[in-house]
Amino acid sequence: MSAPSHSAAELAERFGLEVRGDAGARIEGVGTLAGAGPRQLAFLANPKYRGQLAACDAGVVVMREADAAGFPGTALVARDPYATFARIAALFAPRPEWPAGLHPSADVHPDASVSPDAQVGAFVSIGARSRVDAGARIGPGCVIGEDCVVGEGCELVARVTLVVRVRLGQRVRIHPGAVLGADGFGLAMNEGRWLNVPQLGGVVVGDDCEIGANTCIDRGAIEDTVLGDDVRLDNQIQIGHNVVVGAHTAMAGCVAVAGSARIGRYCLIGGGAGVVGHIEICDRVTVTAMSLVTSSIREPGEYSSGTPLMDNRSWRRNAARFRQLDALARRLPRGDA
Amino acid sequence: MSAPSHSAAELAERFGLEVRGDAGARIEGVGTLAGAGPRQLAFLANPKYRGQLAACDAGVVVMREADAAGFPGTALVARDPYATFARIAALFAPRPEWPAGLHPSADVHPDASVSPDAQVGAFVSIGARSRVDAGARIGPGCVIGEDCVVGEGCELVARVTLVVRVRLGQRVRIHPGAVLGADGFGLAMNEGRWLNVPQLGGVVVGDDCEIGANTCIDRGAIEDTVLGDDVRLDNQIQIGHNVVVGAHTAMAGCVAVAGSARIGRYCLIGGGAGVVGHIEICDRVTVTAMSLVTSSIREPGEYSSGTPLMDNRSWRRNAARFRQLDALARRLPRGDA
Amino acid sequence: MSAPSHSAAELAERFGLEVRGDAGARIEGVGTLAGAGPRQLAFLANPKYRGQLAACDAGVVVMREADAAGFPGTALVARDPYATFARIAALFAPRPEWPAGLHPSADVHPDASVSPDAQVGAFVSIGARSRVDAGARIGPGCVIGEDCVVGEGCELVARVTLVVRVRLGQRVRIHPGAVLGADGFGLAMNEGRWLNVPQLGGVVVGDDCEIGANTCIDRGAIEDTVLGDDVRLDNQIQIGHNVVVGAHTAMAGCVAVAGSARIGRYCLIGGGAGVVGHIEICDRVTVTAMSLVTSSIREPGEYSSGTPLMDNRSWRRNAARFRQLDALARRLPRGDA
Repeated sequence: MSAPSHSAAELAERFGLEVRGDAGARIEGVGTLAGAGPRQLAFLANPKYRGQLAACDAGVVVMREADAAGFPGTALVARDPYATFARIAALFAPRPEWPAGLHPSADVHPDASVSPDAQVGAFVSIGARSRVDAGARIGPGCVIGEDCVVGEGCELVARVTLVVRVRLGQRVRIHPGAVLGADGFGLAMNEGRWLNVPQLGGVVVGDDCEIGANTCIDRGAIEDTVLGDDVRLDNQIQIGHNVVVGAHTAMAGCVAVAGSARIGRYCLIGGGAGVVGHIEICDRVTVTAMSLVTSSIREPGEYSSGTPLMDNRSWRRNAARFRQLDALARRLPRGDA
Repeated sequence: MSAPSHSAAELAERFGLEVRGDAGARIEGVGTLAGAGPRQLAFLANPKYRGQLAACDAGVVVMREADAAGFPGTALVARDPYATFARIAALFAPRPEWPAGLHPSADVHPDASVSPDAQVGAFVSIGARSRVDAGARIGPGCVIGEDCVVGEGCELVARVTLVVRVRLGQRVRIHPGAVLGADGFGLAMNEGRWLNVPQLGGVVVGDDCEIGANTCIDRGAIEDTVLGDDVRLDNQIQIGHNVVVGAHTAMAGCVAVAGSARIGRYCLIGGGAGVVGHIEICDRVTVTAMSLVTSSIREPGEYSSGTPLMDNRSWRRNAARFRQLDALARRLPRGDA
Repeated sequence: MSAPSHSAAELAERFGLEVRGDAGARIEGVGTLAGAGPRQLAFLANPKYRGQLAACDAGVVVMREADAAGFPGTALVARDPYATFARIAALFAPRPEWPAGLHPSADVHPDASVSPDAQVGAFVSIGARSRVDAGARIGPGCVIGEDCVVGEGCELVARVTLVVRVRLGQRVRIHPGAVLGADGFGLAMNEGRWLNVPQLGGVVVGDDCEIGANTCIDRGAIEDTVLGDDVRLDNQIQIGHNVVVGAHTAMAGCVAVAGSARIGRYCLIGGGAGVVGHIEICDRVTVTAMSLVTSSIREPGEYSSGTPLMDNRSWRRNAARFRQLDALARRLPRGDA
């Protein structure tokens, strides 16, 4: 493969940008503002990095109009430099070189249907009544159980498991180790022993979702667990059975959402946050990292729990007082408030 | 497959229930109280949903005696409607259609022994001196290392790893991505570098345990890591080396238990909770979600840590005061308490 | 295999120790101080277990000089008994019995290069331009994508995924289910939808690192995600894109480090702790379990957040007061401090 190369003028034309400086400057890759060389394109989105422009060696820099004034190099002026950078960088992202069609080692059930236009890698297993649509790519070591659908243009990178009754929309990307459609954690205590509650539902994933590495989405107990379109889940997330996640919501790594919680659209859930079961979070809610949502949230906004980090000695003193907080409060003189 | 069908009378007979209404009503599946149709069975366990009975279309509803009075439809009266529902729903749970015996692609060490009555799926690897007993099902992509035992009727759904010296009792179910018997995290700092402490123990899992997707249970350093009978672990849980978990204890997703902790019987550990190493938790302890257990618990009961969720602005104000808590407490007038 | 056997004298000679008691005592394995028998070696490092010496049945015990005085059995005197024990125990750690070379089922791309001295197990897939060096062992079910390097003496235990552009130093050990080099979580919101930011960097792992089961290390967006030498990561850890972890740092299970954080050398990060993105932690910082690091740490030492565990009833009372903390503080009489 020879590296692709693009001139500033070509990029401006393609993405509707304005060039300032040398329209013929050619780039062969991307870099950071501090690290890019003369053959690379960088971007400036966060004003806090503006100071790096002076020493910047990048051949071309994507930036806002206001930042371009006085910049001596070649700029591509964009309203949203980060999104524009993302689109340009995609030109340089290598695609895995997979042969078309089924790898000879793949084990496909006779009642499964795989589009001749799909790619299926080594050591993939596909179960009865499952369907893989055109343009889908199933990487090495994936296991697709029974009654699943992998929509057009989906990508299961490698070692993904769809256990049973998992229906993916179009262009869904799933990273290695993710498990969709495992048994929800449904238990009834009966005469001193746990009894399994059969998990008869499935998982429905909308178009353009992304599911991170080692993330789990359990199937529903009776009805389905549902992700709307364009939901973005980072790695190591746990989504319990019958959870519903609204379109365009994004969750950072290690979030845990317990069964039957309903999360709205355009929410942002910070890393390691938790959501207890059977509650609702409305649209456009942000939850900060490692916070625990224990009851429904009905107003958009930002929510937090936890305490600030301190040196351990100070923390011990303050944490000990937390134990006494109610008693201490009762000793306060009566105030006006 | 034609769907199974059962009449209310047959179900009453089979599970020792009483029918009210049309004993001949036939069901072909289960549903929620709000969603079930005339051919489906639903249940009412939580009194908070009693109001849904009026508009309920389900052909049969499992409920308590007290709820059945005045219900115009067909009821199956049960002392524990949820457990009864679980048993009835199991009649409708499809089993994966796997052929008996060894998949031709399976790689079984000549010194391993696999019961002719076990099912072993595609791309499964089984190591030296390991044993798979009658009725066990090893799904696609599982790796069983050396010196392991998979007891009668166990199910390893898919892509499960038993690294080495893992002994499963009977009817243990393990979900995809779970890793049992990996090296415990045993390190000694020696002259500025980490030295691995060999992990020579194994993992012992009692009968009827369930291990969730992507959950890890490390093997012991010298002695074994041990799960009692009927322990239920949800997804993404981490169990460190030499932990002992008592029978019938259940843990929700993302719990982390550090090395050598001992947890009693009939405990309930909430999602995302942590247990530090080398402590003991007695029987019948409940730990709420995302709490951290930092010392031994000797009394049954419910335990918690953390702070409540607030809008971020209020949280910032209060969290800042947490930093000053000890200093603030010292400024309190001396009280009687 | 007949078990290896070593005399106290041989061990003393080999590891530079001093024998007290019967230099001819032979051991065939190791055990705990409480559980070891006459053919086993135990160790005493933590003074809290000194009381167990009296009833100890171990054939040989590794201990400090001070503890050996008056011990009636056979002692091996060491300055650091735990590290010495680790070295001796390694003599008894069985190695998996793998045949040399490539398993016939392995799927190796014609442009990949695998040392004839490496071991590659069943159902392993190795992509274009990847390299596996001498003495490396790739266990069953591993997937190695394109442009990866597995250095000399590395061990990928089983079902490990190196997605793309992952370069491992020498003697790196990676446990089952770990995923290195998955797409970082880079998103730009654009006209109401998420746009993927291509992740063009890789992952670089130094010599002698250990990566736990189901741990994820994402590849960098532009530059690489980097682990220094001798970094030790336990299970279920999430390392975001462009994170840099200094040499000899160890993290316990379930830690989450968000993108572009920089962590120093010789840090200890407790289980379930979180580190937000784009901050720096200096060398020799300890973070206690389940603490959240929300800003840079510039001084070595121990840091914590969170509140202590309480019975749920007391916790509810105190937690309710946390909501009022700022208001309560304002009602305090003005103090000297």
